[in-house]
Amino acid sequence: MSSDDCIFCKIVKGAIPCHKLFENEHVLCFLDIGPLSVGHCLVIPKEHGEQIDNLSDTTLAAIGPALKQAKIATGVPACNVLQNNGKLAHQEVMHVHFHVIPKTSEDDGLGVGWNGIKEKPDFPSLLETMRNRIQ
Amino acid sequence: MSSDDCIFCKIVKGAIPCHKLFENEHVLCFLDIGPLSVGHCLVIPKEHGEQIDNLSDTTLAAIGPALKQAKIATGVPACNVLQNNGKLAHQEVMHVHFHVIPKTSEDDGLGVGWNGIKEKPDFPSLLETMRNRIQ
Repeated sequence: MSSDDCIFCKIVKGAIPCHKLFENEHVLCFLDIGPLSVGHCLVIPKEHGEQIDNLSDTTLAAIGPALKQAKIATGVPACNVLQNNGKLAHQEVMHVHFHVIPKTSEDDGLGVGWNGIKEKPDFPSLLETMRNRIQ
Repeated sequence: MSSDDCIFCKIVKGAIPCHKLFENEHVLCFLDIGPLSVGHCLVIPKEHGEQIDNLSDTTLAAIGPALKQAKIATGVPACNVLQNNGKLAHQEVMHVHFHVIPKTSEDDGLGVGWNGIKEKPDFPSLLETMRNRIQ
């Protein structure tokens, strides 16, 4: 359930303090200490898992309602929810965490780079390949 | 539960086709037709809600396990999960959707702009304000 050298597991255990917003049996929500905007917070599972597919469905089921609570807590009409899997995808702490990042102007919050791929894939073939991975 | 002029509600109803990866009672997962990388897919609730805090907890509880399935379907070790709330935060379809965007190189997938705010907020005061919004 936990990893001895994981900073987020230490926060869950209370061995490292955090600015806790709320918690329940499965998740903890606290303020990011290096925020991209005021109110930037993190929703993390208490179960240790490096990536989203390492978590139990019980834990995962608690994430969505917690994101809703975190968004309400920010008090803003616009925000980004971001969860990064893998160093290449900008993950820095190797324990699943969902950022809830308020956006109050073009200048604060998350920068979103959106460049579609030029050559579209063969969707039916891709779909078959992807379905086979989960069947 | 649905909105007559919502393109994602029409996809849920089958009135508009999609490249469906999987579905259950609460969620639908299909390929994004304007992908940022091969395998870019969307997890959407069948319940209509513009932003995450407009959805029921029952629906939200189905999102996490579906993201896990979608990530496994991509077959890649790195990906970003992104959900945008509000036009300012890059939301384009006003029905909650979670992007699952594979990252296979620095050049494909989601661009993440990460600029911390220069002046950190007064965390204890901010925390009290945010807690009051959800109590």
